[in-house]
Amino acid sequence: MPFTALRVAGPSQRRRYRRTVTSVRDFVNDHRQRLLDDLDQWLRIPGISAQPERHADVRRGADWFADAARRTGFPVVEVLDDGPWLPAVYAEWRSEDAGAPTVLVYGHHDVQPVDPLDLWHTDPFSPTLDGDVLRARGASDDKGQLLFHLLGVQAHLAATGRSTPAVTLKLLVEGEEESGSPHFADLLEAHKDKLGCDVVVVTDTGIVAPDVPSTVTGMRGMVAATVHFHGPDLDLHSGVFGGAVPNPATAIARMVGALHDDRGRVQVPGFYDDVVELTDTERELFAKVPSDDAEFMKVAQSRALHGENGFTTLERIGARPTAEVNGIGGGYQGDGHKTVIPSDAFVKLSFRLVANQDPAKIISGVDRFVGEHTPDGIVADVAWEGSGVKACLVPLGTPAYEALTDAISAAFDGAQVLPTREGGSGPEAALQEATGVPLVFLGFMLPDDQIHAPNEKVSVPLLYKGAEAAAHLWAGFAAVGATALRER
Amino acid sequence: MPFTALRVAGPSQRRRYRRTVTSVRDFVNDHRQRLLDDLDQWLRIPGISAQPERHADVRRGADWFADAARRTGFPVVEVLDDGPWLPAVYAEWRSEDAGAPTVLVYGHHDVQPVDPLDLWHTDPFSPTLDGDVLRARGASDDKGQLLFHLLGVQAHLAATGRSTPAVTLKLLVEGEEESGSPHFADLLEAHKDKLGCDVVVVTDTGIVAPDVPSTVTGMRGMVAATVHFHGPDLDLHSGVFGGAVPNPATAIARMVGALHDDRGRVQVPGFYDDVVELTDTERELFAKVPSDDAEFMKVAQSRALHGENGFTTLERIGARPTAEVNGIGGGYQGDGHKTVIPSDAFVKLSFRLVANQDPAKIISGVDRFVGEHTPDGIVADVAWEGSGVKACLVPLGTPAYEALTDAISAAFDGAQVLPTREGGSGPEAALQEATGVPLVFLGFMLPDDQIHAPNEKVSVPLLYKGAEAAAHLWAGFAAVGATALRER
Repeated sequence: MPFTALRVAGPSQRRRYRRTVTSVRDFVNDHRQRLLDDLDQWLRIPGISAQPERHADVRRGADWFADAARRTGFPVVEVLDDGPWLPAVYAEWRSEDAGAPTVLVYGHHDVQPVDPLDLWHTDPFSPTLDGDVLRARGASDDKGQLLFHLLGVQAHLAATGRSTPAVTLKLLVEGEEESGSPHFADLLEAHKDKLGCDVVVVTDTGIVAPDVPSTVTGMRGMVAATVHFHGPDLDLHSGVFGGAVPNPATAIARMVGALHDDRGRVQVPGFYDDVVELTDTERELFAKVPSDDAEFMKVAQSRALHGENGFTTLERIGARPTAEVNGIGGGYQGDGHKTVIPSDAFVKLSFRLVANQDPAKIISGVDRFVGEHTPDGIVADVAWEGSGVKACLVPLGTPAYEALTDAISAAFDGAQVLPTREGGSGPEAALQEATGVPLVFLGFMLPDDQIHAPNEKVSVPLLYKGAEAAAHLWAGFAAVGATALRER
Repeated sequence: MPFTALRVAGPSQRRRYRRTVTSVRDFVNDHRQRLLDDLDQWLRIPGISAQPERHADVRRGADWFADAARRTGFPVVEVLDDGPWLPAVYAEWRSEDAGAPTVLVYGHHDVQPVDPLDLWHTDPFSPTLDGDVLRARGASDDKGQLLFHLLGVQAHLAATGRSTPAVTLKLLVEGEEESGSPHFADLLEAHKDKLGCDVVVVTDTGIVAPDVPSTVTGMRGMVAATVHFHGPDLDLHSGVFGGAVPNPATAIARMVGALHDDRGRVQVPGFYDDVVELTDTERELFAKVPSDDAEFMKVAQSRALHGENGFTTLERIGARPTAEVNGIGGGYQGDGHKTVIPSDAFVKLSFRLVANQDPAKIISGVDRFVGEHTPDGIVADVAWEGSGVKACLVPLGTPAYEALTDAISAAFDGAQVLPTREGGSGPEAALQEATGVPLVFLGFMLPDDQIHAPNEKVSVPLLYKGAEAAAHLWAGFAAVGATALRER
């Protein structure tokens, strides 16, 4: 496989590029401890955006990153807390080169909740380094990824002998991503003066395997809601009243039970209306991505695969919309048995969307579905998490995409960079809409990093690769130039 | 309506009986405060048998009642703690009359859990008297009922001038009833030497309304289980894995969704095989019990009725078996949203049974149903609460039944005592099997006492009525005699 970075460079540039690769790697290797020390500090701040009692910690996490950006050399650093969103961080480092492209890097500093806490082998907020593996909530998603950028820009300066980056670098670090970015559109609107750029780099994704570099080219969107069923106004004795009044726990289970048919198709009215089906060519490309159902099951620690009939695992994750139960509750939860008819029950549902599905249409379809499955005597309430997130697709072969894969390849000694799709959702669609420029994904989480689960971890060597790739990317984007970067 | 107590008494006995009614009432009225003071002490002990951390309190509750029985005058009082059961109390007061019948009174000293605690208007273990209403966990179910017996036997002695009761009185007060009496059969087996009697009086039930005395003539049985579904061995990110692995929360909801058909019929294999259908005559009798669906909905604080098609509310509760969800849980339970595929989910199910249904057959049917509804990749576990409780039916018109209704009527100034059926389950079937004698129900809970729910309360005047009825009952049973009491 040829060294793909060379596609944008002539023969005389090749030697210079190789020198840069060595210089970048040397700088990163010489400053590994700084990244680890910084990460250790940041990971101790439990900034869980989904839990209001942790919002002071979310702010501390923002303040910490703002300081770190200042220490790195960013001349402009602001904590953005002038709206309903949790504090975000904006940092800017202008290139001294006239006409240099502008790059907006997106990431987030908030983290997922940590329950069930008893399944963690180490304290989630006491980072523990075990060989090449660092364990802590947020180690991979997304603090580790963001910190490689701080090291990366310094490596870029050191390797090129520059005092400002070859591109104008903007960092936008959100504090609500793990809560579904409910105010991200507001934040983008309020700070649209800061968003001018030629390309967006999203750093909140992963690669296929430690030795298989890849980049995400599609992400699913999402809508999420808590459906609450209220039955009798008090918990009732199931002997005295059982069999004669509506039971909201039974009713909500029946509603969830009707959510899929026996072929795994979601039964929300109109759910598949706008889905663009995979073409035969796309299905062939999907089939080329190295993927092994047995390995997937091992990483998922699942005893079986399960999903929409007629699709492969990668298709189910990357190209098909879903309905999942994220939580369900109601009635007696403790030891032993309490023979009540509960007064209340809830289910937390999320729906992953694919390109062209409109969150607003899905929301109204789910509202209708819940209404149709609410029996007499049950009061239903559907609380949506914001207005949802659209799916996002990155076209292959654009100059921005080529520069990205070249930079990643350089960090991986010339290995081929594969395009993948990810099943997750983020605020990418909003970023794409607000900026109007191409968007690429640079991130090095691993499938088994257990993000969102107990015992989250990150592969430390991949963070160093991330710093290298970022350093190469700024030089690569500068070589491409602003106009070409905007090509779609 | 004639004074039904007179059915067992000739004209000359009538005057004596009326004097007894007055004497019993006077004694009870003079000792009301003692009952209230005792109840206040006992209700402060949070003896929740379903919660292992409360088992020390269950023992304290047993010790307290043992002391109270001794203070009342019972010469033999034992705390039974020589087996796997939580401590029970046995008390015995032999009649000095040769050939006096022996009566075994059953009740329980343990109480239901109190969650959700935030729905209580007062502390569940700080009894609060508000006019005629006393609020606390256990006030009605079953501590208040048991304490009227202690006052009742004293009223019986005072009104008849006796130094020992006219019947040999045995009290058996269990400590695990609210957990489904898992070891009650063991307890009965271990202490069968204490169970010799001519009639059993169960004191753990209610009446139709404060001014409508009634007695239970049927109780449903029950089996209960926690079904646990285990999916992937860790919580997974629903973006990364959603749509491709089995979700135990979705799966358990689908299983519960299949539990009833659209007509409210339980879909467990063989569920209705042994049910004795109501005869037309029985349905006519049921229809005579004063019952008002609107009032039932008001007491249940429910906006609708819901149940098996083709049956009235009373039939659904008294004569039809059910399947109810008592609790369901899995995945994220907190504020906001966590986009996980949970590793685990559970549902707590109970099945009310009617006469002739065999708990063992229902248990195996449910096991089969769960197996048939466990998808690939899900590991199911069904944990049964003991071996279940058979339903129980009291034949009308026997001497024991007539003496019971006479005694209740006497406490209610001669009002007619209606036969009812209750939907609840208790250890009656085991008692009936262990003793081989007729069983009757004496209890004064009200439908709106909110037993098993927040804000449990008891009507204090009904406890005084209970003491009166008990006092009359011992005289009445003595008048009937041991041989006639055993008639079925």
